[in-house]
Amino acid sequence: MPTPDHILQIGLSFWASKTLLSAVEMEVFTELAKRPEDLKTLGGRLGLHPRSAHDFFDALVALGFLEREDGVYTNAPAADLYLDKRKPSYIGGVLEMANRRLYPHWDKLTTALRTGQPQGEAGPDGNNTFAALYADPDRLKGFLRAMSGVSRGANLAIASKFPWSKYRTVTDAGPAQGDLLVQVALHNQHLMGIGFDLPEVGPIFEEYVSDHGLSERLVFQGGSFFTDPLPQADVIMMGHILHDWNLDEKRALIRKAWEALPEGGAFLAYDAVIDDDRSKNSFGLLMSLNMLIETKGGFDYTGADCIGWMKDAGFREARVEHLVGPDSMVVGIK
Amino acid sequence: MPTPDHILQIGLSFWASKTLLSAVEMEVFTELAKRPEDLKTLGGRLGLHPRSAHDFFDALVALGFLEREDGVYTNAPAADLYLDKRKPSYIGGVLEMANRRLYPHWDKLTTALRTGQPQGEAGPDGNNTFAALYADPDRLKGFLRAMSGVSRGANLAIASKFPWSKYRTVTDAGPAQGDLLVQVALHNQHLMGIGFDLPEVGPIFEEYVSDHGLSERLVFQGGSFFTDPLPQADVIMMGHILHDWNLDEKRALIRKAWEALPEGGAFLAYDAVIDDDRSKNSFGLLMSLNMLIETKGGFDYTGADCIGWMKDAGFREARVEHLVGPDSMVVGIK
Repeated sequence: MPTPDHILQIGLSFWASKTLLSAVEMEVFTELAKRPEDLKTLGGRLGLHPRSAHDFFDALVALGFLEREDGVYTNAPAADLYLDKRKPSYIGGVLEMANRRLYPHWDKLTTALRTGQPQGEAGPDGNNTFAALYADPDRLKGFLRAMSGVSRGANLAIASKFPWSKYRTVTDAGPAQGDLLVQVALHNQHLMGIGFDLPEVGPIFEEYVSDHGLSERLVFQGGSFFTDPLPQADVIMMGHILHDWNLDEKRALIRKAWEALPEGGAFLAYDAVIDDDRSKNSFGLLMSLNMLIETKGGFDYTGADCIGWMKDAGFREARVEHLVGPDSMVVGIK
Repeated sequence: MPTPDHILQIGLSFWASKTLLSAVEMEVFTELAKRPEDLKTLGGRLGLHPRSAHDFFDALVALGFLEREDGVYTNAPAADLYLDKRKPSYIGGVLEMANRRLYPHWDKLTTALRTGQPQGEAGPDGNNTFAALYADPDRLKGFLRAMSGVSRGANLAIASKFPWSKYRTVTDAGPAQGDLLVQVALHNQHLMGIGFDLPEVGPIFEEYVSDHGLSERLVFQGGSFFTDPLPQADVIMMGHILHDWNLDEKRALIRKAWEALPEGGAFLAYDAVIDDDRSKNSFGLLMSLNMLIETKGGFDYTGADCIGWMKDAGFREARVEHLVGPDSMVVGIK
């Protein structure tokens, strides 16, 4: 006889989610990275009410984000590396965004499912999600940092897995802070790269690249990937870009990449690519629902979908390669 | 080197949660229990927008709640048994409540952590959470049905695990619909039982008991477990009751149980009892945060906590027994 465990576990898993999101919001891990602390000191420093602190920290222990020995809390290794705001490896930006925006937006999932319309700040038109972000430098920086967070694992995989020795130049279209280019350049000393995005991204990209000592090899070029040609290079990359757009826009972006490549050049698009049977990569399918909630026409896609679009755009071959977790890259060769 | 997978998976797990909650809200499983359906028919019948339907249903496949063969969707076995509204085994009430109330309330977790005050409809006082529920028969019925949903697995375990042959009568204090008494009575033909709760619960309890053909053996008695004595019986039960209340109230309820028992009688309290080290039962710790959000003073507790309170109340022995999933019962013998 089937048990109800899985149903209840998933149905109430927003409890664990929101607990982690509040911990990131309150900078629990940044605080504990400075020094281990006991319940009273940590709760006091973070401004927690005595009723709440004990259960909150112990829930973070049971979820694997904190450790506790003799009443003293420390960060678990992954939390210390990825959720301490003062470390360059911090990926909490995506969780800050999830906490502030996505969690309340997803409360309107049923409306999104019935109307097909986004439920974010930009309203049912949703055209202005990105425009609104780009208009506010603080929000833009937060968003771009969030994108580094959600992409770090894939970026590291691409930096080491892709046959970079065959190529000399690379353009990243929609690079956010530039983390993909940074990881690729750190692992491949011979490469020169261009980050291409709307001009507002320039200072944020340049600061991040400079922090990693790569300003000599990675430069920014301002422009729109819908109205301008992409900077020519041996490899064109788009990470978590294609899924933001509707089918016509996806096809236009793929064609733009083809046009900017030499014969033999490679287009590398990555996303939480859905398995061709659409029955396994739950994260990719849920990400597509997130695009429903956040954008006017965006959706995630299978490897077979993307290979088809690449072939239609003129690429002579295309293949899917798994990266890490839910992310795969689709590589097209011109 | 640690990976960020677990952090991102938990941090965004509200996506999967809300997807299941919306599916229950839209009665996807009740619809599919009638007949398997293809994408277009199912999406049309449920009023889904074409942009949304495919990803939504396939996400439910990838999460294990639906199955799909040749484009035709059916319920997975557990979803068919527990999420079809027309079956008595339906447990979706707790997910309906989570969807309508808890998900938005948890958006204010950070405020709850900082203030120690509940964040539900009843406002920061929170005293009136139950009063408001009991005042509205429809909301009350929904809440009591939700409680059956979250308790079913534990109720079945108690019905078969506890040494019922030693006892003849049983009182359930705060029985909701009466599912625990119903399961116990179905498995133990010799038992007579009383459901004890505020009078508003009476008709709902009696309907549920009658639906199971047990009206001869299970009766309702109206009263308040804070101001009235509990109906005397060989066994007193409280399921998901103690965690609703503050420490003084918990102690008062345990003492009430002791007073209503004969020498040798058993008090059986169950909840998502936290492990004594407070480092493993994440669900119990998160349930305690849910009590922070929903009640003025409620909290979940460890087995050692509860055994201590029972001993203080006069029980001569007390022990913890695991039931199912996160739930355990604490049994005190007078």
